[in-house]
Amino acid sequence: MTGPVLAIDLKSPVPAYRQIVDQLRRFCVEGALEPGEALPSVRRLAVDLGVHHNTVAEAYRALALEGWIEVAHGRPTVVLERAATAPKRERRLELERSFERRLRDFIAEMRAQGLPAPRIAGRLRTVAEEMEG
Amino acid sequence: MTGPVLAIDLKSPVPAYRQIVDQLRRFCVEGALEPGEALPSVRRLAVDLGVHHNTVAEAYRALALEGWIEVAHGRPTVVLERAATAPKRERRLELERSFERRLRDFIAEMRAQGLPAPRIAGRLRTVAEEMEG
Repeated sequence: MTGPVLAIDLKSPVPAYRQIVDQLRRFCVEGALEPGEALPSVRRLAVDLGVHHNTVAEAYRALALEGWIEVAHGRPTVVLERAATAPKRERRLELERSFERRLRDFIAEMRAQGLPAPRIAGRLRTVAEEMEG
Repeated sequence: MTGPVLAIDLKSPVPAYRQIVDQLRRFCVEGALEPGEALPSVRRLAVDLGVHHNTVAEAYRALALEGWIEVAHGRPTVVLERAATAPKRERRLELERSFERRLRDFIAEMRAQGLPAPRIAGRLRTVAEEMEG
């Protein structure tokens, strides 16, 4: 993994384990990590990030369960080809509601910490524009 | 609490305790809960949400630590007046970076679950517009 750089924010309320899962998943979704690529060993990544190796092992297991990577004993962990999910209409509506609620909760959390609303709105717009490419 | 309605999504990867904290904080930030308002008792809310009362008690403690509510033995838990935080420049930049990283991780998570990118981009825009009022 030479390209994307994992970073753990120790001040974040998000546990280190979740931060690793979320960032590696993002790299897979965005294509920064491609199928066939090898991930660093658990021990290596734990040292690089300054976390316990169990934290990395747990993150790798969660990503394997989601179908993003293959963890095999004695072989490097590799990124898998993962078919895009196309959920049924009902499930998609449920996902949209969940997205909206969590997005609003997250924004309120950042506002509570003192991030001004106009800055947040600006970043939301930028990210939306990038996605619409 | 008659207005805003708390809802726990049992399918969410976010623990119930965090969902309660995040939603009540949002109600405070957005003004749906106002200073002086009483929250339901721990036991009452636990029954309403179908969670263990320790889950609610822990959420109330976290919100009290953040300065949103006052929890006192034998008296109703009430929403506090909380001064807006205006962080220093360096801290604000740190918050912005954290916001951006977590937003992108969150979007990747929802895309991985099958929520189409254009829907996500559309919701981001709507929320940005609302914030700019």
